Amino acid sequence: MTQLLRSWVESANAPDTDFPLNNLPYGAFRVGDSDLHAGVAIGARILDVTALVQAGLLDLPETGVFARGTWNDFMALGSDVWASFRAHLTAALAEGAAQQSDLEPHLVAMADAKLEMPFIVTEFTDFYAGRHHAFNVGSLFRDPANALPPNWLHIPIGYNGRASSVVVSGTDITRPNGQLKAPDAEMPVFEASKRFDLELEMGAIVGKPSKGRVSVQEADDMIFGYVLLNDWSARDIQAWEYQPLGPFQAKATATTISPWIVTKAALEPFRASTPPREKELLPYLAETGPMLYDIDLEVGLAPEGKSETILSRTNYNVMYYSAAQQLTHHTTSGCPMRVGDLLGSGTISGPEKENRGSLLELSWAGKEPLTLDTGETRTFLEDGDTLTLRGAAKGDGYRIGFGDCTGTLRPASALD
Amino acid sequence: MTQLLRSWVESANAPDTDFPLNNLPYGAFRVGDSDLHAGVAIGARILDVTALVQAGLLDLPETGVFARGTWNDFMALGSDVWASFRAHLTAALAEGAAQQSDLEPHLVAMADAKLEMPFIVTEFTDFYAGRHHAFNVGSLFRDPANALPPNWLHIPIGYNGRASSVVVSGTDITRPNGQLKAPDAEMPVFEASKRFDLELEMGAIVGKPSKGRVSVQEADDMIFGYVLLNDWSARDIQAWEYQPLGPFQAKATATTISPWIVTKAALEPFRASTPPREKELLPYLAETGPMLYDIDLEVGLAPEGKSETILSRTNYNVMYYSAAQQLTHHTTSGCPMRVGDLLGSGTISGPEKENRGSLLELSWAGKEPLTLDTGETRTFLEDGDTLTLRGAAKGDGYRIGFGDCTGTLRPASALD
Repeated sequence: MTQLLRSWVESANAPDTDFPLNNLPYGAFRVGDSDLHAGVAIGARILDVTALVQAGLLDLPETGVFARGTWNDFMALGSDVWASFRAHLTAALAEGAAQQSDLEPHLVAMADAKLEMPFIVTEFTDFYAGRHHAFNVGSLFRDPANALPPNWLHIPIGYNGRASSVVVSGTDITRPNGQLKAPDAEMPVFEASKRFDLELEMGAIVGKPSKGRVSVQEADDMIFGYVLLNDWSARDIQAWEYQPLGPFQAKATATTISPWIVTKAALEPFRASTPPREKELLPYLAETGPMLYDIDLEVGLAPEGKSETILSRTNYNVMYYSAAQQLTHHTTSGCPMRVGDLLGSGTISGPEKENRGSLLELSWAGKEPLTLDTGETRTFLEDGDTLTLRGAAKGDGYRIGFGDCTGTLRPASALD
Repeated sequence: MTQLLRSWVESANAPDTDFPLNNLPYGAFRVGDSDLHAGVAIGARILDVTALVQAGLLDLPETGVFARGTWNDFMALGSDVWASFRAHLTAALAEGAAQQSDLEPHLVAMADAKLEMPFIVTEFTDFYAGRHHAFNVGSLFRDPANALPPNWLHIPIGYNGRASSVVVSGTDITRPNGQLKAPDAEMPVFEASKRFDLELEMGAIVGKPSKGRVSVQEADDMIFGYVLLNDWSARDIQAWEYQPLGPFQAKATATTISPWIVTKAALEPFRASTPPREKELLPYLAETGPMLYDIDLEVGLAPEGKSETILSRTNYNVMYYSAAQQLTHHTTSGCPMRVGDLLGSGTISGPEKENRGSLLELSWAGKEPLTLDTGETRTFLEDGDTLTLRGAAKGDGYRIGFGDCTGTLRPASALD
């Protein structure tokens, strides 16, 4: 699986496609006003899985799993079905496959489709597992000598986010209003956020439920796949609200995910190890093998009507904790996990300035404005800015891509 | 509605029942191995609403709403249906009602029923809105002169909890394991929590969805009803994990709710005002009328096989922020709210020691052990302890009760 697998769908063999036969990510789409259908990306096409099941061309233990157009019910069938379904599609879409004539009528041009949420987010948890991000934020708000909170090297720090605010790529984002207070002001005001930011993250999707604590290996086995994730963040709302119980409205405006679930199976050749431990982890967090992935990531910002500047380039393999470690920690207290739970990795910042995954870090809390390729500057986001995350694991002559994770910032709602 | 409404169900006319005709709270139950049915409590009986609909004895815009046995689909029908349904039941169960012979076959003895979750919790948010609780906790962990965080008198502070961990009264609770670190220890350990606690709260249930910010009046209109809520909390896990992003595993073991949704309509005669503002609130948080309720609350603790001691007595009307204010604040950033969202009030502690709603406060962080009526002492909970919350609004010759909110603590799972 480390070389391109050729498909009879010609566009899937192009070296720059996000969706070669090696990938086969899972999404949900409409054409015009149609019902939501489940689909699999292959080159510039989508294989309509809901239609395939209706036509009796797919053998599944339960035929109703794609009726809603989302992937939750499929995930609930378990990992044996995940594997057999993927093997079946891989064979049927391969160059020379006998099924070509059966499947061809069920291919849709991706350009004609509107992509929607590929799964229903059951609950959303966001972590804080990037070593460089935590160091940068700690340096900004405390001091570089004590940048990391004392628990950081021991616990994959996380907090519960808001599932209702997770949206699919392409959804406009409205700048939030909220309580803001200048450090020297007596009273807070209720105004539009002036320090609205992105966070470049990966999201891991739980495909198998649990009750009680699971091991790191069990946690890795529970993960169905990954998406890109932009955890939009209002830094000024957060600064005033987050003590003592953590971020709340600062993180509840929206979180954008990429439209395709890239399966763990597709990423298997790209596993990478977490970096050396700076302090020994408690045994329950020990990984049994590499559980990060070598995925190149970038963030682009395009002001309204203008061309895009790449703000940052980094890689998922810089994270201190893997999604499996985060999921294990999530279950320590007995917290039940369910199919469709989404775990944000935390902001993925690499070691250098050009690897930073948020404007908070890139503009050093607004003190060092960035100059875009258009000549404009940015500290935080301006209305009309379009943010796009991209990511791909790169094999020999092919890439396992995620599709764009994009959103445009619209002005705040009137204050009455 | 401020006097007892008499019912042909005799047990509903007893002055000490939680469930007179004035109440009519909504639950979900099984008898033996039956499917989950929706039911309405009346005296010592449950009116089987799922069966009534099947028998064509209830007129609803959609007849499938009780098919799952929970109240989410009913809530989604909107507040006009909430009102007409309640009016219909109130008339049909009243003394002398012509429908008595139709309904009698669909009454089940509560003693024969197993109560389950009355609704599916979509998302769970917990607040920190008790003035005395915040003062006590701040005094314990900071100092009495600066007990309240600077934002506390301006923001109904909240954090997202874990919906998957919400359980119905009667569910056993397993003491959590977790990372603990003594202040003078070099490294954390992974062990059973030694400071496991209760929190006496009310829960408000969102019955009407929203997108974008809602006013306090709109928020009040969105609330369908209330339950008692015990937010079990591991104080030692929390102390080590909560900086900088708030409580996570400390609050994820379980949250117990009482089995009956007491509707806002039933509580209408008991509305109470929030206390005077110590600092002026921003206009978006201003209440248009009384939005708390006069509900007497108590917590009992019974060691295994022994009699119960009442640990605390307080009232919901001591809270600084109402559920409507909390819900308004929850929507400020644009966070969508959905039917079935649950909002915990925060710990309800009154002004005196005997009004404190947690053992953290009652035992002053373990420094002042409580002596139970049995002669035993407690700082935090011991395995085998059964905690019971009770609550009732008290009218003229009747009470609007919630039913017990109870749970027994079982020993932690083995550490491998």
